[in-house]
Amino acid sequence: MSDARPIGVFDSGIGGLTVLRALRACLPHENFLYLGDTARLPYGTKSAETVTSYALQAARLLVRWGGVKMVVIACNTASSVALGPLAQGLAPVPLIGVVEPGARAGVSATRNGHIAVIATEGTVRGGAYVRAIHGIAPEMTVSQTACTLFVALAEEGWIDGPIMEHAAQRYLAPLFSESTAGAPRPDTLVLGCTHFPVLAPVLANVLGPQVRLVDSAQTTADAVVGELRQRGLLVAGATSGRVNFMVTDSPERFVRVGPVFFGAPISPDAVETIDL
Amino acid sequence: MSDARPIGVFDSGIGGLTVLRALRACLPHENFLYLGDTARLPYGTKSAETVTSYALQAARLLVRWGGVKMVVIACNTASSVALGPLAQGLAPVPLIGVVEPGARAGVSATRNGHIAVIATEGTVRGGAYVRAIHGIAPEMTVSQTACTLFVALAEEGWIDGPIMEHAAQRYLAPLFSESTAGAPRPDTLVLGCTHFPVLAPVLANVLGPQVRLVDSAQTTADAVVGELRQRGLLVAGATSGRVNFMVTDSPERFVRVGPVFFGAPISPDAVETIDL
Repeated sequence: MSDARPIGVFDSGIGGLTVLRALRACLPHENFLYLGDTARLPYGTKSAETVTSYALQAARLLVRWGGVKMVVIACNTASSVALGPLAQGLAPVPLIGVVEPGARAGVSATRNGHIAVIATEGTVRGGAYVRAIHGIAPEMTVSQTACTLFVALAEEGWIDGPIMEHAAQRYLAPLFSESTAGAPRPDTLVLGCTHFPVLAPVLANVLGPQVRLVDSAQTTADAVVGELRQRGLLVAGATSGRVNFMVTDSPERFVRVGPVFFGAPISPDAVETIDL
Repeated sequence: MSDARPIGVFDSGIGGLTVLRALRACLPHENFLYLGDTARLPYGTKSAETVTSYALQAARLLVRWGGVKMVVIACNTASSVALGPLAQGLAPVPLIGVVEPGARAGVSATRNGHIAVIATEGTVRGGAYVRAIHGIAPEMTVSQTACTLFVALAEEGWIDGPIMEHAAQRYLAPLFSESTAGAPRPDTLVLGCTHFPVLAPVLANVLGPQVRLVDSAQTTADAVVGELRQRGLLVAGATSGRVNFMVTDSPERFVRVGPVFFGAPISPDAVETIDL
């Protein structure tokens, strides 16, 4: 059995390209249709109601117009606040978010049971990582903080140097102080926003080798492979899959800034502008 | 003659509150209706087409639903790319943007004829400040650069300290190097984004006393007073005017972050959430 329909990947903009990159590496023969809601980004500072309504519109478009066989919500904010309504709205098309795989990666990585999470305002406020981690391992201690500026720094390409270093110190110092509520210092940092993997080298440098950094891109890709296999939805064949992109704003900025996250050039010919 | 209808003030989010603050100081008896399109901010990284379509929706709502007697576009990006279509779409309701007043303030301030402009990506790309300054004084040299991160820094409240200082140096150094195209070093910096006035102390510190900083808040307020007087639309009376706010996302963040820009607390009771 072979199912050549594309896998839909949705993000508020360009951060989700880090997840698409991991998916491509695991599933080189699959076709992908990536939708970035660039006209309305960022989602991270917006309310749960607004994010849910935007994400539903986008995911429905991937299913109805794009004919995708599965939807991956490659946006932590949307995964945090909208996964329930999305699963309901898209059924029976399978849906995978990035929060549950990220939480699972954090639980696997920690040795002392104290996990730190950095994310957008919306993800932190919604508390989805805390719930997901405690759903897997209720005995864990979870500390989290919103790192709003990291999104802008990543998009500006200022991913190293003194500005990024100072910002990392300012956000992370309170999280990694010696005694948080009697727990040991966190030994694991979950990157709870798909923009953040490009900042990992500086974060690792600021935190030192005792702290493990985990992001949800790889574990999400693993979860997608498992789900497709179980449902018999994998594509067969040895040809390289295609990647097409849809954006809601003009593609100029997406094509210019996107490669930082995707790790490869993005051809303007592969990008279509749509209305949501 | 007295016209108690409110003055409509529109911005993509919260930066326009710096303009509203100047308007309130000049026109204490007027009523104001401020609309922040917080669900779709920021406009600064979006295309001209998208910004024009959003701004038209918002301005029409101010006129049709809010019954305003004038619309102030307190957003540089929207003023830069959408003022023509907006004036056409709202006629005969008078419309004032912030770019023309900002350009006028820059031309008045410079002594050596070289004006630097900092703004969002959208404003810089559209070139509206260059056109507006050359429309007033064609002999001027204008240099401009996009300072994308300043918006995030202002909204995070990181308006001083090493991160803001490093970012200011990084953005401003190329603009204020000794010899730009044979012209003298700029002696004037136009703050071409309504978020930037709260960053003025650090910018002044980085640039030194030889460079004058101008923003469009005060000159826009002056232009509004002139236009209302000329059309006989000023309110009469000695009572204090009311300010009401409408936002497109939930008001929590607007009420929390807005006072940095407005210079006064914002009561949640004065803020209504609407759909556009």
